[in-house]
Amino acid sequence: MNEGKAKQLFTTDDPNVIQVHYMNQATALNGKRKEHIDDKGEVNNQIDSLIFEYLNHLGISTHFIKRLSDSDQLVKKMKMIPLEVVIRNYASGSFQRKFDTEYLQKFEQPVQEFYYKSDRLDDPFINDSQIHALKIATPDQLGIMREQVYKINSALSKLFAAAGITLVDFKVEFGFDADGNLILGDEISPDSCRLVDASTHESLDKDVFRKHTGDVMDGYRTVLSRLEATAK
Amino acid sequence: MNEGKAKQLFTTDDPNVIQVHYMNQATALNGKRKEHIDDKGEVNNQIDSLIFEYLNHLGISTHFIKRLSDSDQLVKKMKMIPLEVVIRNYASGSFQRKFDTEYLQKFEQPVQEFYYKSDRLDDPFINDSQIHALKIATPDQLGIMREQVYKINSALSKLFAAAGITLVDFKVEFGFDADGNLILGDEISPDSCRLVDASTHESLDKDVFRKHTGDVMDGYRTVLSRLEATAK
Ligand SMILES: Nc1ncnc2c1ncn2[C@@H]1O[C@H](COP(=O)(O)OP(=O)(O)O)[C@@H](O)[C@H]1O
Ligand SMILES: Nc1ncnc2c1ncn2[C@@H]1O[C@H](COP(=O)(O)OP(=O)(O)O)[C@@H](O)[C@H]1O
Ligand SMILES: [Mg+2]
Ligand SMILES: [Mg+2]
Repeated sequence: MNEGKAKQLFTTDDPNVIQVHYMNQATALNGKRKEHIDDKGEVNNQIDSLIFEYLNHLGISTHFIKRLSDSDQLVKKMKMIPLEVVIRNYASGSFQRKFDTEYLQKFEQPVQEFYYKSDRLDDPFINDSQIHALKIATPDQLGIMREQVYKINSALSKLFAAAGITLVDFKVEFGFDADGNLILGDEISPDSCRLVDASTHESLDKDVFRKHTGDVMDGYRTVLSRLEATAK
Repeated sequence: MNEGKAKQLFTTDDPNVIQVHYMNQATALNGKRKEHIDDKGEVNNQIDSLIFEYLNHLGISTHFIKRLSDSDQLVKKMKMIPLEVVIRNYASGSFQRKFDTEYLQKFEQPVQEFYYKSDRLDDPFINDSQIHALKIATPDQLGIMREQVYKINSALSKLFAAAGITLVDFKVEFGFDADGNLILGDEISPDSCRLVDASTHESLDKDVFRKHTGDVMDGYRTVLSRLEATAK
Protein backbone atom coordinates (compact mmCIF):
# COMPACT_ATOMS: atom_id res chain seq x y z
CA MET A 1 0.00 0.00 0.00
CA ASN A 2 2.91 2.36 0.67
CA GLU A 3 6.70 2.18 0.57
CA GLY A 4 9.02 4.52 2.43
CA LYS A 5 12.79 4.65 2.68
CA ALA A 6 13.03 1.89 5.30
CA LYS A 7 9.69 0.08 5.49
CA GLN A 8 6.90 -1.30 3.30
CA LEU A 9 3.29 -1.16 4.48
CA PHE A 10 0.69 -3.76 3.46
CA THR A 11 -3.04 -3.84 4.07
CA THR A 12 -4.48 -6.80 5.99
CA ASP A 13 -7.96 -8.32 6.29
CA ASP A 14 -8.66 -5.81 9.03
CA PRO A 15 -8.95 -2.29 7.54
CA ASN A 16 -7.62 -0.79 10.79
CA VAL A 17 -4.47 -2.96 10.83
CA ILE A 18 -1.45 -2.89 8.56
CA GLN A 19 1.58 -5.10 8.23
CA VAL A 20 4.96 -3.38 8.31
CA HIS A 21 7.87 -5.01 6.53
CA TYR A 22 11.32 -3.75 7.55
CA MET A 23 13.58 -3.61 4.48
CA ASN A 24 17.29 -4.39 4.24
CA GLN A 25 18.00 -0.90 3.07
CA ALA A 26 19.64 2.22 4.44
CA THR A 27 19.35 5.74 3.08
CA ALA A 28 21.08 9.02 3.84
CA LEU A 29 20.92 12.58 2.56
CA ASN A 30 17.11 12.44 2.47
CA GLY A 31 17.12 9.34 0.24
CA LYS A 32 19.72 10.53 -2.27
CA ARG A 33 22.10 7.81 -1.05
CA LYS A 34 20.59 4.32 -0.80
CA GLU A 35 22.27 0.97 -0.05
CA HIS A 36 21.29 -2.64 0.54
CA ILE A 37 22.35 -3.84 4.00
CA ASP A 38 22.01 -7.53 4.95
CA ASP A 39 19.97 -8.24 8.10
CA LYS A 40 19.16 -4.59 8.80
CA GLY A 41 15.42 -5.09 8.42
CA GLU A 42 15.35 -8.05 10.78
CA VAL A 43 17.49 -6.42 13.43
CA ASN A 44 15.51 -3.15 13.32
CA ASN A 45 12.17 -4.93 13.43
CA GLN A 46 13.30 -6.80 16.53
CA ILE A 47 14.70 -3.72 18.26
CA ASP A 48 11.59 -1.71 17.41
CA SER A 49 9.23 -4.48 18.59
CA LEU A 50 11.07 -4.79 21.87
CA ILE A 51 10.92 -1.01 22.44
CA PHE A 52 7.26 -0.62 21.48
CA GLU A 53 6.25 -3.58 23.68
CA TYR A 54 8.07 -1.87 26.52
CA LEU A 55 6.24 1.43 25.86
CA ASN A 56 2.84 -0.27 25.56
CA HIS A 57 3.60 -2.09 28.81
CA LEU A 58 4.29 1.28 30.50
CA GLY A 59 0.86 2.52 29.39
CA ILE A 60 2.12 4.78 26.60
CA SER A 61 -0.30 4.44 23.66
CA THR A 62 1.39 3.29 20.45
CA HIS A 63 0.34 1.81 17.10
CA PHE A 64 2.20 -1.44 17.85
CA ILE A 65 0.13 -4.63 17.98
CA LYS A 66 2.63 -7.49 17.68
CA ARG A 67 5.68 -8.84 15.92
CA LEU A 68 4.81 -11.37 13.18
CA SER A 69 8.21 -12.60 12.09
CA ASP A 70 11.86 -11.58 12.04
CA SER A 71 11.17 -8.80 9.57
CA ASP A 72 7.46 -7.99 9.93
CA GLN A 73 5.04 -6.61 12.49
CA LEU A 74 1.37 -5.66 12.78
CA VAL A 75 0.43 -2.11 13.73
CA LYS A 76 -2.71 0.03 13.85
CA LYS A 77 -3.28 1.85 10.59
CA MET A 78 -2.92 5.55 11.24
CA LYS A 79 -3.36 8.93 9.59
CA MET A 80 0.16 10.24 10.15
CA ILE A 81 0.95 13.84 11.17
CA PRO A 82 3.81 14.97 8.87
CA LEU A 83 6.11 16.02 11.70
CA GLU A 84 9.34 14.52 12.95
CA VAL A 85 9.38 15.05 16.70
CA VAL A 86 12.96 15.17 17.96
CA ILE A 87 14.32 14.99 21.50
CA ARG A 88 17.97 15.61 22.33
CA ASN A 89 19.62 14.72 25.63
CA TYR A 90 23.15 15.50 24.41
CA ALA A 91 24.39 17.80 21.62
CA SER A 92 25.08 16.06 18.32
CA GLY A 93 24.25 16.19 14.62
CA SER A 94 22.47 19.25 13.27
CA PHE A 95 22.21 20.89 16.72
CA GLN A 96 25.96 20.69 17.21
CA ARG A 97 26.66 21.96 13.69
CA LYS A 98 24.13 24.79 13.88
CA PHE A 99 25.14 26.12 17.30
CA ASP A 100 28.78 25.01 17.30
CA THR A 101 28.48 23.31 20.69
CA GLU A 102 30.65 20.53 22.03
CA TYR A 103 29.89 16.95 20.89
CA LEU A 104 27.82 15.14 23.52
CA GLN A 105 27.49 18.19 25.76
CA LYS A 106 24.66 17.26 28.16
CA PHE A 107 21.57 19.48 28.22
CA GLU A 108 20.15 20.36 31.66
CA GLN A 109 16.73 19.65 30.17
CA PRO A 110 16.10 17.70 26.95
CA VAL A 111 15.85 19.85 23.82
CA GLN A 112 12.73 19.30 21.71
CA GLU A 113 12.40 20.15 18.01
CA PHE A 114 9.87 19.66 15.20
CA TYR A 115 10.77 19.06 11.55
CA TYR A 116 8.19 19.20 8.78
CA LYS A 117 8.29 15.78 7.08
CA SER A 118 8.42 16.74 3.41
CA ASP A 119 10.93 15.17 1.02
CA ARG A 120 10.20 17.96 -1.45
CA LEU A 121 11.09 20.69 1.08
CA ASP A 122 13.95 18.68 2.62
CA ASP A 123 12.33 18.25 6.05
CA PRO A 124 12.72 21.85 7.26
CA PHE A 125 13.07 22.71 10.95
CA ILE A 126 9.77 24.33 11.97
CA ASN A 127 8.38 26.08 15.04
CA ASP A 128 4.93 25.94 16.65
CA SER A 129 3.77 29.17 15.08
CA GLN A 130 4.71 28.02 11.56
CA ILE A 131 3.06 24.62 12.19
CA HIS A 132 -0.22 26.37 13.06
CA ALA A 133 0.02 28.74 10.08
CA LEU A 134 0.54 25.84 7.68
CA LYS A 135 -2.28 23.91 9.43
CA ILE A 136 -0.04 20.89 10.03
CA ALA A 137 -1.23 20.48 13.63
CA THR A 138 -3.13 22.46 16.27
CA PRO A 139 -1.56 23.88 19.46
CA ASP A 140 -3.39 21.18 21.46
CA GLN A 141 -2.00 18.41 19.26
CA LEU A 142 1.52 19.82 19.62
CA GLY A 143 1.00 19.86 23.38
CA ILE A 144 0.02 16.18 23.41
CA MET A 145 2.97 15.16 21.21
CA ARG A 146 5.37 17.15 23.37
CA GLU A 147 4.06 15.58 26.58
CA GLN A 148 4.24 12.09 25.07
CA VAL A 149 7.72 12.47 23.64
CA TYR A 150 9.12 13.65 26.99
CA LYS A 151 7.59 10.58 28.65
CA ILE A 152 8.97 8.30 25.94
CA ASN A 153 12.38 9.93 26.35
CA SER A 154 12.44 9.27 30.11
CA ALA A 155 11.39 5.67 29.62
CA LEU A 156 13.84 4.95 26.82
CA SER A 157 16.76 6.75 28.45
CA LYS A 158 16.36 4.38 31.41
CA LEU A 159 15.94 1.30 29.21
CA PHE A 160 19.07 2.07 27.20
CA ALA A 161 21.06 3.07 30.28
CA ALA A 162 20.35 -0.35 31.79
CA ALA A 163 21.86 -1.80 28.60
CA GLY A 164 25.01 0.33 28.91
CA ILE A 165 23.88 2.61 26.10
CA THR A 166 23.41 6.39 26.15
CA LEU A 167 20.36 7.73 24.30
CA VAL A 168 21.80 10.87 22.71
CA ASP A 169 18.75 11.88 20.66
CA PHE A 170 15.91 10.36 18.65
CA LYS A 171 12.96 11.19 16.44
CA VAL A 172 9.45 9.82 16.50
CA GLU A 173 6.30 10.31 14.46
CA PHE A 174 2.69 10.47 15.65
CA GLY A 175 -0.64 9.87 13.99
CA PHE A 176 -4.34 9.31 14.58
CA ASP A 177 -5.73 5.80 14.95
CA ALA A 178 -9.19 4.79 13.71
CA ASP A 179 -10.76 6.19 16.91
CA GLY A 180 -9.05 9.55 16.41
CA ASN A 181 -6.56 9.07 19.25
CA LEU A 182 -3.23 10.84 18.80
CA ILE A 183 -0.69 8.07 19.43
CA LEU A 184 2.91 7.11 18.71
CA GLY A 185 3.53 5.48 15.31
CA ASP A 186 6.37 4.74 12.91
CA GLU A 187 9.50 3.20 14.44
CA ILE A 188 12.17 3.57 17.11
CA SER A 189 15.44 1.92 16.08
CA PRO A 190 19.10 2.77 15.50
CA ASP A 191 17.87 4.33 12.22
CA SER A 192 16.02 6.99 14.19
CA CYS A 193 18.06 7.23 17.42
CA ARG A 194 21.58 8.35 18.20
CA LEU A 195 22.99 5.73 20.55
CA VAL A 196 26.52 5.55 21.94
CA ASP A 197 28.17 3.04 24.22
CA ALA A 198 27.91 4.53 27.71
CA SER A 199 31.61 4.08 28.48
CA THR A 200 33.47 4.21 25.13
CA HIS A 201 31.04 6.60 23.33
CA GLU A 202 31.31 4.36 20.28
CA SER A 203 28.50 5.06 17.83
CA LEU A 204 25.91 2.25 17.68
CA ASP A 205 23.49 3.85 15.20
CA LYS A 206 23.01 5.11 11.67
CA ASP A 207 25.76 7.72 12.08
CA VAL A 208 28.18 4.87 11.21
CA PHE A 209 26.40 4.62 7.83
CA ARG A 210 26.07 8.41 7.40
CA LYS A 211 29.79 8.95 8.11
CA HIS A 212 31.20 5.72 6.58
CA THR A 213 33.06 4.88 9.80
CA GLY A 214 32.60 1.10 9.82
CA ASP A 215 30.09 -1.76 9.52
CA VAL A 216 26.79 -0.25 10.60
CA MET A 217 25.38 -3.69 11.52
CA ASP A 218 27.98 -4.18 14.28
CA GLY A 219 26.37 -1.42 16.32
CA TYR A 220 22.78 -2.44 15.46
CA ARG A 221 23.48 -6.04 16.57
CA THR A 222 25.09 -4.79 19.78
CA VAL A 223 21.98 -2.72 20.53
CA LEU A 224 19.67 -5.69 19.93
CA SER A 225 21.63 -8.19 21.99
CA ARG A 226 22.11 -5.79 24.90
CA LEU A 227 18.41 -4.81 24.91
CA GLU A 228 17.43 -8.47 24.80
CA ALA A 229 19.74 -9.25 27.72
CA THR A 230 18.33 -6.28 29.68
CA ALA A 231 14.69 -7.11 28.92
CA LYS A 232 15.10 -10.56 30.46
CA MET B 1 31.46 52.48 21.90
CA ASN B 2 30.10 49.95 19.37
CA GLU B 3 29.52 49.81 15.62
CA GLY B 4 27.11 47.49 13.88
CA LYS B 5 26.17 47.07 10.24
CA ALA B 6 23.79 50.08 10.21
CA LYS B 7 24.36 52.16 13.33
CA GLN B 8 27.11 53.54 15.55
CA LEU B 9 26.59 53.80 19.30
CA PHE B 10 28.27 56.51 21.42
CA THR B 11 28.35 56.94 25.17
CA THR B 12 26.97 60.17 26.62
CA ASP B 13 27.43 62.01 29.95
CA ASP B 14 24.65 59.84 31.36
CA PRO B 15 25.89 56.22 31.73
CA ASN B 16 22.33 54.95 31.13
CA VAL B 17 21.91 56.85 27.85
CA ILE B 18 23.59 56.31 24.49
CA GLN B 19 23.56 58.24 21.24
CA VAL B 20 22.73 56.26 18.11
CA HIS B 21 24.09 57.48 14.78
CA TYR B 22 22.35 56.04 11.71
CA MET B 23 24.93 55.43 8.98
CA ASN B 24 24.56 55.88 5.23
CA GLN B 25 25.29 52.23 4.65
CA ALA B 26 23.40 49.14 3.60
CA THR B 27 24.50 45.54 3.97
CA ALA B 28 23.16 42.22 2.75
CA LEU B 29 24.16 38.56 3.04
CA ASN B 30 24.94 39.00 6.72
CA GLY B 31 27.37 41.87 6.03
CA LYS B 32 29.27 40.23 3.16
CA ARG B 33 27.87 42.86 0.78
CA LYS B 34 28.19 46.47 1.97
CA GLU B 35 27.42 49.74 0.13
CA HIS B 36 27.33 53.47 0.83
CA ILE B 37 23.84 54.90 0.27
CA ASP B 38 23.27 58.69 0.40
CA ASP B 39 20.62 59.86 2.90
CA LYS B 40 19.76 56.36 4.15
CA GLY B 41 20.89 57.13 7.71
CA GLU B 42 18.80 60.32 7.89
CA VAL B 43 15.68 58.77 6.41
CA ASN B 44 15.88 55.66 8.63
CA ASN B 45 16.52 57.72 11.77
CA GLN B 46 13.44 59.80 11.02
CA ILE B 47 11.23 56.78 10.25
CA ASP B 48 12.48 54.95 13.35
CA SER B 49 11.97 58.01 15.57
CA LEU B 50 8.43 58.50 14.32
CA ILE B 51 7.61 54.82 14.94
CA PHE B 52 9.19 54.63 18.39
CA GLU B 53 7.46 57.87 19.48
CA TYR B 54 4.20 56.31 18.35
CA LEU B 55 4.89 53.11 20.34
CA ASN B 56 5.95 55.06 23.46
CA HIS B 57 2.78 57.11 23.10
CA LEU B 58 0.70 53.88 23.05
CA GLY B 59 2.31 52.83 26.33
CA ILE B 60 4.63 50.21 24.84
CA SER B 61 7.99 50.47 26.66
CA THR B 62 10.92 51.13 24.36
CA HIS B 63 14.50 52.35 24.66
CA PHE B 64 13.71 55.49 22.64
CA ILE B 65 14.21 58.85 24.38
CA LYS B 66 14.30 61.45 21.58
CA ARG B 67 15.60 62.34 18.17
CA LEU B 68 18.63 64.67 18.34
CA SER B 69 19.19 65.51 14.68
CA ASP B 70 18.49 64.21 11.20
CA SER B 71 20.80 61.26 11.71
CA ASP B 72 21.07 60.80 15.49
CA GLN B 73 18.88 59.87 18.44
CA LEU B 74 19.17 59.26 22.18
CA VAL B 75 18.12 55.89 23.62
CA LYS B 76 18.38 54.05 26.91
CA LYS B 77 21.52 51.97 27.09
CA MET B 78 20.53 48.33 27.22
CA LYS B 79 21.95 44.87 27.69
CA MET B 80 20.66 43.32 24.47
CA ILE B 81 19.23 39.79 24.23
CA PRO B 82 20.88 38.21 21.15
CA LEU B 83 17.60 37.26 19.47
CA GLU B 84 15.92 38.61 16.38
CA VAL B 85 12.18 38.45 17.03
CA VAL B 86 10.31 38.15 13.75
CA ILE B 87 6.60 38.58 13.01
CA ARG B 88 5.08 37.74 9.63
CA ASN B 89 1.60 38.82 8.49
CA TYR B 90 2.10 37.63 4.91
CA ALA B 91 4.42 34.98 3.45
CA SER B 92 7.68 36.32 2.03
CA GLY B 93 11.45 35.89 2.22
CA SER B 94 12.83 32.86 4.04
CA PHE B 95 9.36 31.60 5.06
CA GLN B 96 8.22 31.54 1.47
CA ARG B 97 11.44 29.87 0.29
CA LYS B 98 11.48 27.29 3.07
CA PHE B 99 7.82 26.24 2.80
CA ASP B 100 7.26 27.02 -0.88
CA THR B 101 4.14 29.08 -0.19
CA GLU B 102 2.69 31.79 -2.36
CA TYR B 103 4.23 35.29 -2.17
CA LEU B 104 2.15 37.52 0.14
CA GLN B 105 -0.22 34.72 1.15
CA LYS B 106 -1.98 36.12 4.27
CA PHE B 107 -1.67 34.20 7.52
CA GLU B 108 -4.85 33.79 9.59
CA GLN B 109 -2.73 34.61 12.61
CA PRO B 110 0.70 36.27 12.47
CA VAL B 111 3.63 33.86 12.40
CA GLN B 112 6.32 34.45 15.03
CA GLU B 113 9.95 33.27 14.82
CA PHE B 114 13.18 33.69 16.77
CA TYR B 115 16.65 33.84 15.20
CA TYR B 116 19.82 33.63 17.27
CA LYS B 117 21.74 36.84 16.54
CA SER B 118 25.24 35.53 15.87
CA ASP B 119 27.26 36.64 12.84
CA ARG B 120 29.59 33.68 13.42
CA LEU B 121 26.72 31.14 13.24
CA ASP B 122 24.87 33.07 10.50
CA ASP B 123 21.82 33.96 12.66
CA PRO B 124 20.27 30.47 12.84
CA PHE B 125 16.52 29.96 13.21
CA ILE B 126 15.98 28.73 16.78
CA ASN B 127 13.06 27.41 18.84
CA ASP B 128 12.12 28.01 22.49
CA SER B 129 13.62 24.74 23.68
CA GLN B 130 16.98 25.47 22.04
CA ILE B 131 16.94 29.02 23.42
CA HIS B 132 16.54 27.65 26.96
CA ALA B 133 19.21 24.98 26.45
CA LEU B 134 21.72 27.58 25.24
CA LYS B 135 20.68 29.90 28.11
CA ILE B 136 19.94 32.77 25.72
CA ALA B 137 16.65 33.64 27.47
CA THR B 138 14.23 32.09 29.96
CA PRO B 139 10.70 30.88 29.12
CA ASP B 140 9.30 33.92 30.99
CA GLN B 141 11.43 36.31 28.97
CA LEU B 142 10.34 34.66 25.71
CA GLY B 143 6.75 35.04 26.88
CA ILE B 144 7.20 38.78 27.47
CA MET B 145 8.91 39.32 24.11
CA ARG B 146 6.19 37.36 22.31
CA GLU B 147 3.42 39.35 23.99
CA GLN B 148 5.15 42.64 23.22
CA VAL B 149 5.90 41.83 19.60
CA TYR B 150 2.28 40.87 18.91
CA LYS B 151 1.17 44.22 20.40
CA ILE B 152 3.77 46.07 18.35
CA ASN B 153 2.61 44.24 15.24
CA SER B 154 -1.02 45.25 15.76
CA ALA B 155 -0.06 48.87 16.36
CA LEU B 156 2.30 49.11 13.40
CA SER B 157 0.02 47.23 10.99
CA LYS B 158 -2.61 49.93 11.67
CA LEU B 159 -0.12 52.79 11.41
CA PHE B 160 1.23 51.57 8.06
CA ALA B 161 -2.25 50.72 6.72
CA ALA B 162 -3.31 54.31 7.36
CA ALA B 163 -0.34 55.32 5.20
CA GLY B 164 -1.39 53.00 2.37
CA ILE B 165 1.38 50.53 3.22
CA THR B 166 1.10 46.82 4.06
CA LEU B 167 3.35 45.55 6.85
CA VAL B 168 4.40 42.15 5.47
CA ASP B 169 6.88 41.21 8.20
CA PHE B 170 9.47 42.76 10.51
CA LYS B 171 12.12 41.96 13.10
CA VAL B 172 12.81 43.60 16.41
CA GLU B 173 15.33 43.18 19.21
CA PHE B 174 14.79 43.43 22.96
CA GLY B 175 17.07 44.14 25.88
CA PHE B 176 17.21 45.05 29.56
CA ASP B 177 17.37 48.69 30.63
CA ALA B 178 19.30 49.87 33.71
CA ASP B 179 16.33 48.90 35.95
CA GLY B 180 16.23 45.38 34.51
CA ASN B 181 13.04 45.94 32.51
CA LEU B 182 12.75 43.88 29.33
CA ILE B 183 11.91 46.47 26.67
CA LEU B 184 12.05 47.03 22.94
CA GLY B 185 15.39 48.29 21.58
CA ASP B 186 17.30 48.55 18.32
CA GLU B 187 15.36 49.97 15.35
CA ILE B 188 12.23 49.65 13.23
CA SER B 189 12.79 50.92 9.70
CA PRO B 190 12.61 49.72 6.09
CA ASP B 191 15.91 47.95 6.88
CA SER B 192 14.12 45.65 9.30
CA CYS B 193 10.57 45.56 7.88
CA ARG B 194 9.08 44.25 4.66
CA LEU B 195 6.73 46.97 3.44
CA VAL B 196 4.75 47.00 0.20
CA ASP B 197 2.42 49.58 -1.29
CA ALA B 198 -1.09 48.48 -0.27
CA SER B 199 -2.46 48.69 -3.81
CA THR B 200 0.46 48.10 -6.19
CA HIS B 201 2.46 45.73 -3.89
CA GLU B 202 5.59 47.64 -4.91
CA SER B 203 8.45 46.91 -2.50
CA LEU B 204 9.30 49.91 -0.26
CA ASP B 205 12.01 48.29 1.83
CA LYS B 206 15.46 46.71 1.82
CA ASP B 207 14.36 43.94 -0.55
CA VAL B 208 15.00 46.48 -3.35
CA PHE B 209 18.65 46.55 -2.22
CA ARG B 210 18.82 42.77 -1.62
CA LYS B 211 17.41 42.02 -5.08
CA HIS B 212 18.92 44.96 -7.04
CA THR B 213 15.49 45.96 -8.37
CA GLY B 214 15.85 49.74 -8.28
CA ASP B 215 16.85 52.75 -6.16
CA VAL B 216 16.28 51.63 -2.59
CA MET B 217 15.90 55.24 -1.40
CA ASP B 218 12.76 55.81 -3.49
CA GLY B 219 10.83 53.39 -1.30
CA TYR B 220 12.41 54.59 1.96
CA ARG B 221 11.49 58.22 1.12
CA THR B 222 7.94 57.18 0.22
CA VAL B 223 7.61 55.42 3.59
CA LEU B 224 8.87 58.50 5.46
CA SER B 225 6.68 61.02 3.66
CA ARG B 226 3.56 58.87 3.93
CA LEU B 227 4.14 58.22 7.64
CA GLU B 228 4.72 61.93 8.24
CA ALA B 229 1.50 62.80 6.41
CA THR B 230 -0.40 60.15 8.41
CA ALA B 231 1.07 61.21 11.75
CA LYS B 232 -0.23 64.75 11.27
N1 LIG C 1 0.92 3.03 11.91
C1 LIG C 1 1.11 3.62 10.72
N2 LIG C 1 0.10 3.81 9.84
C2 LIG C 1 0.30 4.39 8.63
N3 LIG C 1 1.49 4.86 8.24
C3 LIG C 1 2.54 4.71 9.07
C4 LIG C 1 2.42 4.11 10.34
N4 LIG C 1 3.64 4.13 10.96
C5 LIG C 1 4.48 4.74 10.10
N5 LIG C 1 3.86 5.08 8.96
C6 LIG C 1 4.43 5.73 7.76
O1 LIG C 1 4.98 4.71 6.96
C7 LIG C 1 5.80 5.29 5.96
C8 LIG C 1 6.96 4.39 5.65
O2 LIG C 1 7.96 4.43 6.64
P1 LIG C 1 9.48 4.75 6.26
O3 LIG C 1 10.00 3.68 5.33
O4 LIG C 1 10.22 4.99 7.52
O5 LIG C 1 9.24 6.09 5.43
P2 LIG C 1 10.10 7.44 5.25
O6 LIG C 1 10.89 7.23 4.00
O7 LIG C 1 9.03 8.49 5.11
O8 LIG C 1 10.93 7.62 6.49
C9 LIG C 1 6.15 6.67 6.52
O9 LIG C 1 5.45 7.64 5.76
C10 LIG C 1 5.60 6.63 7.94
O10 LIG C 1 5.20 7.93 8.38
N1 LIG D 1 19.41 50.56 23.35
C1 LIG D 1 20.48 49.84 22.98
N2 LIG D 1 21.51 49.65 23.85
C2 LIG D 1 22.60 48.93 23.48
N3 LIG D 1 22.74 48.34 22.29
C3 LIG D 1 21.74 48.48 21.40
C4 LIG D 1 20.58 49.23 21.69
N4 LIG D 1 19.75 49.18 20.59
C5 LIG D 1 20.39 48.43 19.67
N5 LIG D 1 21.59 48.01 20.13
C6 LIG D 1 22.61 47.21 19.42
O1 LIG D 1 23.38 48.10 18.64
C7 LIG D 1 24.17 47.35 17.72
C8 LIG D 1 24.35 48.12 16.44
O2 LIG D 1 23.18 48.11 15.65
P1 LIG D 1 23.27 47.63 14.13
O3 LIG D 1 24.15 48.53 13.36
O4 LIG D 1 21.85 47.44 13.65
O5 LIG D 1 24.01 46.23 14.36
P2 LIG D 1 23.93 44.80 13.61
O6 LIG D 1 25.03 44.82 12.60
O7 LIG D 1 24.16 43.83 14.73
O8 LIG D 1 22.53 44.67 13.05
C9 LIG D 1 23.44 46.00 17.61
O9 LIG D 1 24.24 45.02 18.25
C10 LIG D 1 22.15 46.22 18.39
O10 LIG D 1 21.69 45.01 18.99
MG1 LIG E 1 11.06 6.71 8.28
MG1 LIG F 1 20.82 45.70 13.11
